[in-house]
Amino acid sequence: MIDLVFAHPYPKRSRANRILLNAVRDISNLDVRSLYDIYPDFGIDVESEQAALLSAKLVVWQHPLYWYTAPGLMKHWFDKVLARGWAYGEGGSALHGKLCQWVVTTGGDQEAYSATGMHAFNFESFVPVMRQTAEFCGMKWLEPIVVHNAHRVSDKELHAVGRDYRKKLISLATEAQELVVHG
Amino acid sequence: MIDLVFAHPYPKRSRANRILLNAVRDISNLDVRSLYDIYPDFGIDVESEQAALLSAKLVVWQHPLYWYTAPGLMKHWFDKVLARGWAYGEGGSALHGKLCQWVVTTGGDQEAYSATGMHAFNFESFVPVMRQTAEFCGMKWLEPIVVHNAHRVSDKELHAVGRDYRKKLISLATEAQELVVHG
Repeated sequence: MIDLVFAHPYPKRSRANRILLNAVRDISNLDVRSLYDIYPDFGIDVESEQAALLSAKLVVWQHPLYWYTAPGLMKHWFDKVLARGWAYGEGGSALHGKLCQWVVTTGGDQEAYSATGMHAFNFESFVPVMRQTAEFCGMKWLEPIVVHNAHRVSDKELHAVGRDYRKKLISLATEAQELVVHG
Repeated sequence: MIDLVFAHPYPKRSRANRILLNAVRDISNLDVRSLYDIYPDFGIDVESEQAALLSAKLVVWQHPLYWYTAPGLMKHWFDKVLARGWAYGEGGSALHGKLCQWVVTTGGDQEAYSATGMHAFNFESFVPVMRQTAEFCGMKWLEPIVVHNAHRVSDKELHAVGRDYRKKLISLATEAQELVVHG
């Protein structure tokens, strides 16, 4: 199973994220959880989120970058779902060994993410918050898929990224399956 | 005015943050907005939050570190309150020139925040998300007040940090006032 946790505060208004999501959503055994659709009132069902994670070998976090990290509802999801004694700490090994794929779109171009650009830091400076959230839970952090300039990049380019995204998830799911069968 | 935005998901269970907050809450012209008390349902009143920010020269963000950054409700507050056209972008200059003081407690000791520690990164690696949120809005980022090991540090030490915190806010508020009078 692949658990794709999707967090776009305005899913209807998204173009880049919708194209990427549509490129992968029919992969077999992939479950899309669109947080802002499921929990418009922020009342996260922790048990069902944890159950979805438990059944997955591969966890995908897909969202637009909001204030240099995950949107508020996804941050709230981290706070509630990745609980002590379940995801970390004494007895907290539920996510150990799962793969974590981060898929993120940004509004600025690559130059904007530099010491002289409008975002003042390079993009890598904002990665540790997300990466260490995954790694502290014992997940294996994969090379992120980052789409800069999401408002300007062409549909064609987005579809190309979408194809690579799809290939990567299928390949990772296959590997994970083989590990289960032969491991 | 000082606008102190406080975000503790379990304010009643906090010890370190309560001691720090009690050290400053009676400073004149300081307004404490305890987000989890005011908005238990995450329904942030954007207009009143923006009004509180507008009237302040000094903005304080105080919270425990949750998954290496602000708790979910404070992240949601960033997403909603720091709106395009108000806090940034075309016409978005509401916060320009205000001072931003980050006050954060963590559960790990300093050693935990290192390449060989349980959090794998040094603490500074997690700062850019918060810092650039302030600076992108044109606020002046001050040296953060960081209390590591918040569950273990003694009340006495916390009261000492609280006294320094109080002194710093009063001094900053005075400076800001002088800038208004003489600037």
